[in-house]
Amino acid sequence: MNPLLREIRHNPLLWLLAFVPVVFAAEALAPDAHTLLFVLSVLAIVPLAALLSHATESVAAKTGDAAGGLLNATLGNLTELVIALAALRAGQYMLVKASIAGAIVTNTLFMLGASFLLGGLKHHVQEYNRASARLQAGLLFLATVALLIPSAVGAADATERAPFIHTLSVGLAVLLIVAYGLGLLFSLKTHRELFGSAEHAEAGEAPWPLGLALGTLAGVTVVVALVSEVFVESVQQAAEAFGMTPAFVGFIVVALVGGAAEMASAFSGARKDRLDLSVGIALGSASQIALFVAPVLVLLSYVLGPAPMDLQFWPGAVVMILIATLTASLVTNSGRSAWFVGVLVLMMYLIFATTLYLLPPRVQ
Amino acid sequence: MNPLLREIRHNPLLWLLAFVPVVFAAEALAPDAHTLLFVLSVLAIVPLAALLSHATESVAAKTGDAAGGLLNATLGNLTELVIALAALRAGQYMLVKASIAGAIVTNTLFMLGASFLLGGLKHHVQEYNRASARLQAGLLFLATVALLIPSAVGAADATERAPFIHTLSVGLAVLLIVAYGLGLLFSLKTHRELFGSAEHAEAGEAPWPLGLALGTLAGVTVVVALVSEVFVESVQQAAEAFGMTPAFVGFIVVALVGGAAEMASAFSGARKDRLDLSVGIALGSASQIALFVAPVLVLLSYVLGPAPMDLQFWPGAVVMILIATLTASLVTNSGRSAWFVGVLVLMMYLIFATTLYLLPPRVQ
Amino acid sequence: MNPLLREIRHNPLLWLLAFVPVVFAAEALAPDAHTLLFVLSVLAIVPLAALLSHATESVAAKTGDAAGGLLNATLGNLTELVIALAALRAGQYMLVKASIAGAIVTNTLFMLGASFLLGGLKHHVQEYNRASARLQAGLLFLATVALLIPSAVGAADATERAPFIHTLSVGLAVLLIVAYGLGLLFSLKTHRELFGSAEHAEAGEAPWPLGLALGTLAGVTVVVALVSEVFVESVQQAAEAFGMTPAFVGFIVVALVGGAAEMASAFSGARKDRLDLSVGIALGSASQIALFVAPVLVLLSYVLGPAPMDLQFWPGAVVMILIATLTASLVTNSGRSAWFVGVLVLMMYLIFATTLYLLPPRVQ
Repeated sequence: MNPLLREIRHNPLLWLLAFVPVVFAAEALAPDAHTLLFVLSVLAIVPLAALLSHATESVAAKTGDAAGGLLNATLGNLTELVIALAALRAGQYMLVKASIAGAIVTNTLFMLGASFLLGGLKHHVQEYNRASARLQAGLLFLATVALLIPSAVGAADATERAPFIHTLSVGLAVLLIVAYGLGLLFSLKTHRELFGSAEHAEAGEAPWPLGLALGTLAGVTVVVALVSEVFVESVQQAAEAFGMTPAFVGFIVVALVGGAAEMASAFSGARKDRLDLSVGIALGSASQIALFVAPVLVLLSYVLGPAPMDLQFWPGAVVMILIATLTASLVTNSGRSAWFVGVLVLMMYLIFATTLYLLPPRVQ
Repeated sequence: MNPLLREIRHNPLLWLLAFVPVVFAAEALAPDAHTLLFVLSVLAIVPLAALLSHATESVAAKTGDAAGGLLNATLGNLTELVIALAALRAGQYMLVKASIAGAIVTNTLFMLGASFLLGGLKHHVQEYNRASARLQAGLLFLATVALLIPSAVGAADATERAPFIHTLSVGLAVLLIVAYGLGLLFSLKTHRELFGSAEHAEAGEAPWPLGLALGTLAGVTVVVALVSEVFVESVQQAAEAFGMTPAFVGFIVVALVGGAAEMASAFSGARKDRLDLSVGIALGSASQIALFVAPVLVLLSYVLGPAPMDLQFWPGAVVMILIATLTASLVTNSGRSAWFVGVLVLMMYLIFATTLYLLPPRVQ
Repeated sequence: MNPLLREIRHNPLLWLLAFVPVVFAAEALAPDAHTLLFVLSVLAIVPLAALLSHATESVAAKTGDAAGGLLNATLGNLTELVIALAALRAGQYMLVKASIAGAIVTNTLFMLGASFLLGGLKHHVQEYNRASARLQAGLLFLATVALLIPSAVGAADATERAPFIHTLSVGLAVLLIVAYGLGLLFSLKTHRELFGSAEHAEAGEAPWPLGLALGTLAGVTVVVALVSEVFVESVQQAAEAFGMTPAFVGFIVVALVGGAAEMASAFSGARKDRLDLSVGIALGSASQIALFVAPVLVLLSYVLGPAPMDLQFWPGAVVMILIATLTASLVTNSGRSAWFVGVLVLMMYLIFATTLYLLPPRVQ
């Protein structure tokens, strides 16, 4: 039997793929039913993200270690990137920035906290490799701080500074991508023994044949891009219908939808007492958003967007990102976890979400 | 002999109880002598706090581990709570908030720093349980950050936001109390071996009989409440007479007075080279203020106060709380201490106190 | 042969001493050629700083451990102090403050990052004494936070506060110097075994005779002072000619020039896999700027300057200093390093430098 079909049969998450044609049908029939289109597109993106993730890992497993690791690292946040690109093309820069900030905060707080909680409910105290967690938390801190410099310095001095911020954003985007490239060299070549990326693919899941994997990768990316456009078009009005602020949608909804596939891996690792894996996915994915996705979006805004996008976030987002990465550093510092650590990290995420939900729209 | 009288005879601190009737006499005779009433009420609260603390521990020792721990954890900051309630009823919300912020800063910087210094003067280098100190510092960080979200997000975006901040404050108060309850479950039940609360009661002090302890607890709470009212009424004008700003009084004076009893335990632990105990009291007490006392005061303000109180602190207080908890995290990180670490932490407290003392009143 | 001449012959850096007479000749002949004078004075200060550093170490080696350590600790940042004094006398307080902030940031990010990178290019993973690195990073954090309190509290509340900030700055300057004195007592006397300062002098370099060392120390200090005056006079206009902002000059150029000699020692230690030495020099030097150089400049401004100088930094500098010291804490926390850690720390410095270079002058 076709491995793709077998995978779909065995993985209930993938049954949601049925919503993909429904989205396109609904858009053709009722292009103004924004709330319906929003719900359908969310339901369609989640299984597509899971397929993308599996296809990427299969290609990585076939192409060998170095190239495979590179592919895994680059395409690991492909869903987030494709959604953000759709928002970029529509000129919705506030949504793009909220989704960048939200992906960092969601990966560090929600993914990490839920892993600690799920793992802690099954295991009394979980120990994990402190040295590599510290190294990754340090990299994440440096990556996010680099991303935040324009906001921090710019926000501190409120004068006319549009051209300054744009030049600075492009300069930083280039520096961040260089750092990302060197980071790949480090984690895939010179110091690969410090990172457990080879363990990423679960033993139980057989990789697909290369042709199928490449085809799925290409085909699903196109479908995700098409669904993302429906999502981005409908999200604003649907948010209003649900009483959600745009900041809440970008920060929380987009981030949870885009990261669903990685969360499934991280949570499964935590339940199996392999917290190293969960911490690695959560912190690595957040670093990748800061070092790769965000600068790529800045540079692409000059080509694809109606106007250049800068790297200046609203002050509340800066505070949340800094607190999230500091929390990740402090919490992974001891190399031990128990359920209440997860509760507190999740509580912080819940507090952020509540704040964003209640925030008067004008403020953001 | 009555254990209460024996305790009073042996503990010179309790001789200050003589000031309790003096306060009430002075208030009846000279209700406008604010400076005198302020000094007398401070002198009366200190021994009452020590009595409360001993009564709580005695009840805890009698009622068994789980209930006793719960009692200890809940009533450990009873003095602070009663003083803050008096200020709440008088509608002095600035004083309430300053005393919350001040209690967190005083516990983390003054109590921790003085413990390190006093211990370090007697022992060359002191080692303590790094893992549990880190866990506690992590919990404190999460607790205070949760408390500060409305200030951080609200302050960052200065627009009309009163209703937003009030709704958010109530929502967070509920979340913080839930986190506090789960924290009790964690530290008293599922993971009690990580916390040394059983060692809290000093070996040398025999617990009182249950009846005496309960009676003392009830009676002294009432007396503290009465004295606190005198204190709160007189503090404003007394502060002016002494040239102290209201912020200094709330942050420094109230916090030192309210925490005197716990400080005595923490310092005694440090001198006996039991720094685990001192660190546990200091960080645990600060966490409790953030997770329990502060949200309870917000919720009670709807019942007792003239108007609802929110959780928005003035920016200087936010900076001080964040620096204090970050300092606690960094300083307890190594699990080792020497006298100079204590000096530097105390120096930071002294710098905060100097700043508050000099701050022009309008600014706060 | 005279050891001074032998040193000069063997150390190519000292050949730059030839620029010292050239500076004075150029100033006499073309006092308005600011760009030329700026370049020449930079070229002259670098070898003078190296001589000062060697002379200090020679005196320290001769006078025995306690006095020698004291001397080393006090005169280690003599070049920075002399340059800042020249700026102070000229009333250029913005340059003085930028050079204080820049020296802290440059020592913690550039010196530390380049040490990690240079060491990591030669050694796969470098381990160093985690406990002492943590202690030093903790001291640095406390020292810089103390320095920043007036800015943090003052900046948070923007009202008329000039007299408040001046009184506070003098009070803090006294507290910081007391903390510095106690820190010397700690690191040189009571807990000297925790600090590796005895290893500072390289085995290969024989110390000079005492007379030569003292003479060099006195003579070179005078020459540095004279060259610094040329530097300070020319820097403003030269910066404009090069298109550099004043903030960039103070933060980056002055800090790199003033710290060149220490950097040479730190980098050499890193290449020899003695990262303890590099970390100690970088963090110790930054602490010394915060605890000693900065408060001395505040106090001397009442004697030497045209007006009193306060300790209030512009918000961007506060953000950079806090990020730099937090980074130092997080990065030295694991006690391990590899080349990419150095890359990321350097990247952060590069981002700061880029930001300062692009910053519109009005903002600073």
